[in-house]
Amino acid sequence: MFRIGIIGASGYTGFELIRLLANHPKAVLSLITANRYVGKKVAELNPAFYGSTEIIFEKFDLAQMKDRADLVFVALPHGKSMEVVPGLLDGAMKVIDLSGDFRFTDQKVYESWYKVEHAAPFLLGRAVYGLSELMRERILESSFVANPGCFPTAAILALAPALKEGLIDPDDIIIDSLTGTSGAGRMVNQELHFSEIDNSLNSYKVGGVHQHIPEIELNLTKLAGSKVNISFTPHLAPFSRGIYSTIYAKLKTDIDLSEAILVYQDFYANDYFVKVLGSGLYPELKSVLGSNFCQLGLAVDQRSSRLIIISAIDNLVKGASGQAIQNMNLMLGLEEEEGLTGLGLRP
Amino acid sequence: MFRIGIIGASGYTGFELIRLLANHPKAVLSLITANRYVGKKVAELNPAFYGSTEIIFEKFDLAQMKDRADLVFVALPHGKSMEVVPGLLDGAMKVIDLSGDFRFTDQKVYESWYKVEHAAPFLLGRAVYGLSELMRERILESSFVANPGCFPTAAILALAPALKEGLIDPDDIIIDSLTGTSGAGRMVNQELHFSEIDNSLNSYKVGGVHQHIPEIELNLTKLAGSKVNISFTPHLAPFSRGIYSTIYAKLKTDIDLSEAILVYQDFYANDYFVKVLGSGLYPELKSVLGSNFCQLGLAVDQRSSRLIIISAIDNLVKGASGQAIQNMNLMLGLEEEEGLTGLGLRP
Amino acid sequence: MFRIGIIGASGYTGFELIRLLANHPKAVLSLITANRYVGKKVAELNPAFYGSTEIIFEKFDLAQMKDRADLVFVALPHGKSMEVVPGLLDGAMKVIDLSGDFRFTDQKVYESWYKVEHAAPFLLGRAVYGLSELMRERILESSFVANPGCFPTAAILALAPALKEGLIDPDDIIIDSLTGTSGAGRMVNQELHFSEIDNSLNSYKVGGVHQHIPEIELNLTKLAGSKVNISFTPHLAPFSRGIYSTIYAKLKTDIDLSEAILVYQDFYANDYFVKVLGSGLYPELKSVLGSNFCQLGLAVDQRSSRLIIISAIDNLVKGASGQAIQNMNLMLGLEEEEGLTGLGLRP
Amino acid sequence: MFRIGIIGASGYTGFELIRLLANHPKAVLSLITANRYVGKKVAELNPAFYGSTEIIFEKFDLAQMKDRADLVFVALPHGKSMEVVPGLLDGAMKVIDLSGDFRFTDQKVYESWYKVEHAAPFLLGRAVYGLSELMRERILESSFVANPGCFPTAAILALAPALKEGLIDPDDIIIDSLTGTSGAGRMVNQELHFSEIDNSLNSYKVGGVHQHIPEIELNLTKLAGSKVNISFTPHLAPFSRGIYSTIYAKLKTDIDLSEAILVYQDFYANDYFVKVLGSGLYPELKSVLGSNFCQLGLAVDQRSSRLIIISAIDNLVKGASGQAIQNMNLMLGLEEEEGLTGLGLRP
Repeated sequence: MFRIGIIGASGYTGFELIRLLANHPKAVLSLITANRYVGKKVAELNPAFYGSTEIIFEKFDLAQMKDRADLVFVALPHGKSMEVVPGLLDGAMKVIDLSGDFRFTDQKVYESWYKVEHAAPFLLGRAVYGLSELMRERILESSFVANPGCFPTAAILALAPALKEGLIDPDDIIIDSLTGTSGAGRMVNQELHFSEIDNSLNSYKVGGVHQHIPEIELNLTKLAGSKVNISFTPHLAPFSRGIYSTIYAKLKTDIDLSEAILVYQDFYANDYFVKVLGSGLYPELKSVLGSNFCQLGLAVDQRSSRLIIISAIDNLVKGASGQAIQNMNLMLGLEEEEGLTGLGLRP
Repeated sequence: MFRIGIIGASGYTGFELIRLLANHPKAVLSLITANRYVGKKVAELNPAFYGSTEIIFEKFDLAQMKDRADLVFVALPHGKSMEVVPGLLDGAMKVIDLSGDFRFTDQKVYESWYKVEHAAPFLLGRAVYGLSELMRERILESSFVANPGCFPTAAILALAPALKEGLIDPDDIIIDSLTGTSGAGRMVNQELHFSEIDNSLNSYKVGGVHQHIPEIELNLTKLAGSKVNISFTPHLAPFSRGIYSTIYAKLKTDIDLSEAILVYQDFYANDYFVKVLGSGLYPELKSVLGSNFCQLGLAVDQRSSRLIIISAIDNLVKGASGQAIQNMNLMLGLEEEEGLTGLGLRP
Repeated sequence: MFRIGIIGASGYTGFELIRLLANHPKAVLSLITANRYVGKKVAELNPAFYGSTEIIFEKFDLAQMKDRADLVFVALPHGKSMEVVPGLLDGAMKVIDLSGDFRFTDQKVYESWYKVEHAAPFLLGRAVYGLSELMRERILESSFVANPGCFPTAAILALAPALKEGLIDPDDIIIDSLTGTSGAGRMVNQELHFSEIDNSLNSYKVGGVHQHIPEIELNLTKLAGSKVNISFTPHLAPFSRGIYSTIYAKLKTDIDLSEAILVYQDFYANDYFVKVLGSGLYPELKSVLGSNFCQLGLAVDQRSSRLIIISAIDNLVKGASGQAIQNMNLMLGLEEEEGLTGLGLRP
Repeated sequence: MFRIGIIGASGYTGFELIRLLANHPKAVLSLITANRYVGKKVAELNPAFYGSTEIIFEKFDLAQMKDRADLVFVALPHGKSMEVVPGLLDGAMKVIDLSGDFRFTDQKVYESWYKVEHAAPFLLGRAVYGLSELMRERILESSFVANPGCFPTAAILALAPALKEGLIDPDDIIIDSLTGTSGAGRMVNQELHFSEIDNSLNSYKVGGVHQHIPEIELNLTKLAGSKVNISFTPHLAPFSRGIYSTIYAKLKTDIDLSEAILVYQDFYANDYFVKVLGSGLYPELKSVLGSNFCQLGLAVDQRSSRLIIISAIDNLVKGASGQAIQNMNLMLGLEEEEGLTGLGLRP
């Protein structure tokens, strides 16, 4: 059994790592840290764990972590992650960082979108970007992975085949995404107060200001071979989990729907977690709830020559902790789907 | 007091007309028909009416209706409405039809999108399109109004100022809309079964096949003065009421956000029910819940030269029965907002 | 028009007073205070008011309030209300306090359940308890009303007829209540964080410790003529609005269901806002959503000789601000239902 | 690998068996039947299975079933199950019936509550009642198990320790239960239409008429050693999954809360799936979502001498298909928790 540590385990991505690892056949949680909750059991914060794990939050200590874990997940917010990662990388430990801190090679891009000075710029470019399906070969050999953001996972999986195969114009792409509230984390605030979100919908960072934009563009540009430019707008929806993205892309070719679906099905033919639906079918969010699957559905709007791609994931699983474990499996030489085969909770 | 009739009062738009008319100071419900429920009290179908109205469903009878009502709402499904409207128009009675049957002038357009032969083509073009804010002058003098669809109301209000003022390209417009389930009506089916929609999201008629497309294009084209072409995709969201549309339109000019907001606020300066939010604000769906208001929020995505407009309405109120009563008020010479001043139910 | 003030208008009961007064034909909001938000428009906190009211929060000033309002609602939390009420009562102004501070005559009872020393014990017993249907005659002549709690409103309306008519044992009553989250107010906390409540249910103050217990017992004891003892447990449910209480009471007599329903219908025969459903019907919460109505449904469990009463209200309307306006109407000599005739928002 | 069949696999308990078995390490689905859907893939009905299983619904054939399965789940509605079970029992196959048809020994009790004539009365009493924790020893040796109802599972687990140890009066027990909509099955009807349940709550079979009453009383009477009499009322809540029961029972002894908790913790000390929370803690429904766990929380209401027990399960897992697999594990000699260790999906 591989021994796994989590730094910053008291947030929702931390909880989700704990939930998934509790049923992993080849990995065991050996150490979790959360400086605000030292000495508390994780079940005191998340009663779903009551009686199933007695693990206790410890204070972060670099030596302890290196001693007691073979691989560590860093589940700290961006800006905090870069303070601990350098120490972790100094040694044999494998590291998966779930923040945005190491997803870029260009320090200026990071700093201009995240509005924070980078504390470890010498490490930029050392991490492999952990979108498992696209980067599998490099992740297999890596000891440092920057796990993707939730919106980028949904968007990149949806656009990769079309851009790779040159079906669409890389400069005319609109991404409209709905996210459940858990994506905003466990910290309370007025915008996440139940009475104000229930039965509602709202929008934030509309039109070109969300920090996931450069992450999406950077990684899609590599695939497309030419500069990708997107317009991205997120909305907050009245459920806890899930990202549901509808993507509108200008077609460059005269492809019909069945051909487009074939391109996608070929592209993901060997990917266990990405499912391309047949003609006339579109993802239901609930079909991926609690699972590591991504469902993709396609349409061609011939009146406007656009390819429409709908992408559904659970933001805490494929959009964060599930994909992190998928990457862990690759890095540790395990089967990629180990511990992640749970199906969506429907109904 | 004006005497009001409703034909087909046992569906959700019928219920909503009854709810709103119950508090109208100048109109009284005199006759409701629903052939499937003759003799039943409306409270037997909708317990929110329990003890507040004793009105009973009657069988539709043309002579009775003409005798006992000054104005009639036709709340039948499309295809059924056109069977009764011709008779109703023959006389002094004013008629507001909530179906799609009389929203078009071109029989072929109607028949190709609604997949049904028109039974009263001689009446096409006789109805005034009831988007109150845009057609007020003509509605005031009309005795026959075709009430708009729910998606068209949200979309047309959102796009009218920009197209009228030439801010955007009429040929590059994407409309992404979420609707609550009540838009699909009261008839049960698997797709509307609670266990399958709760906590989920799904999509239907993706990419250019929804019958509201020609209605939106036709009416926007009149405003724009040149052919408007849209790409429209609806999604079904896990709440009962509301339409939340995000619209992406290519800017033709170098306008900035504050200028765009001014254009919108000027356009709707005299419209009680349309509110244009200030810079950095976007509609929350819950703010219009149960009300006849439409809230609009704007953003400019400079990276893609797009104007983004977010539009929120209650599909059963401004998107159907509330706007129908707004039109009734105009047609009867009443104050436009009479009986419709209720604010959104938030929280 | 009567001029109305609200002290502490930035919470949910304050918002609901503003929402309801916006459509009141005989009263106008003249002054609202909220010390934390002085100078802000109410629409900045609650966007449902956007464009409909320009009223601005002021700092509380006793002289101003007396000068500019004929009646004032105190919508402060318990413990705070008693600090301002004494000054307000000194003069001609009518006062309706929505907190628990003046619902008791016995200082010790208040202090032992609310865990706070009473700052104005000389006023205890001066307020009329504002359960409109039961105290109408006294409210009509009062200038100081203590508005009931939300759970007590639902419970007392449900039990009053049975206790008054001696149908049930006053010592064997169980009240199981579900409340929406708005009852817990607008202040954020972990227990009200959307991601943790959505799709869930939980319980608090189980079994005899909620501060609404003495309020329910005190007022029912007066009706029953002998000491009423209840077991009360509240639960938090995944919706914003509503209280849904199921009450189990031991029958003292051999009454059957139709007789019990008659007792209830007689008791409330002249009450516009209380509806007793017929045999086999039980309230749906949604039928009272946004309305000032209370719906009651009855069953007799003959296997256990219990009368079961189900009671549904909107906690912010009949359970707080709606009933406060109902009391205002009575105190100002207006029609009791003025401004409160809106029906439940169903579907 | 054991080969598993499901008869009537197109309903929600069938889907849930398929979901859980998909991740069972020692059992494989070999045959599923649903006469209405012969030839269809299960993913066509439940898209959560898309791409993960290619299994196809077959027509039920007794010989096929015996030939191709070692154990069969009968997931038919009550009244239908008893038509196929006799044939299945004739041979070596193990049978777990999820309907109510074989939960009783007394034919009259069954027929009077289920309103249907029993087609196989000779089999009554042959099945072991499958409440795993209480009947483990007998289930281990059985080849025919009648799986409990969802409400009975929640109620019996909650009451068993108190009745077994004589803490409470068997004749004064009130069970108030909320259920998610999936308990009502996949068949559409007006009461389960999304628009009518969302944001609402309602009640049905109030006060002594639900068919789960005799099942609860029968099995608790065996434990208590004297006749148990309950008052049971179910409510329908606006979420898909979960049962949340609050139980009020008259205390016979002067026990305090910590003692009561000890009694419960001792009783379930060796039961993996039942968790008794500590003092001051009550179950959250979401903590058991998607899992086979039951969480119990206790309170003592000293003002009314009542023990209050709150019980939370997922109705489709511990309340149906999860417990059925737990029983399967016992019957097949596997570890009891095999394939069922998934934790609750929280947040």
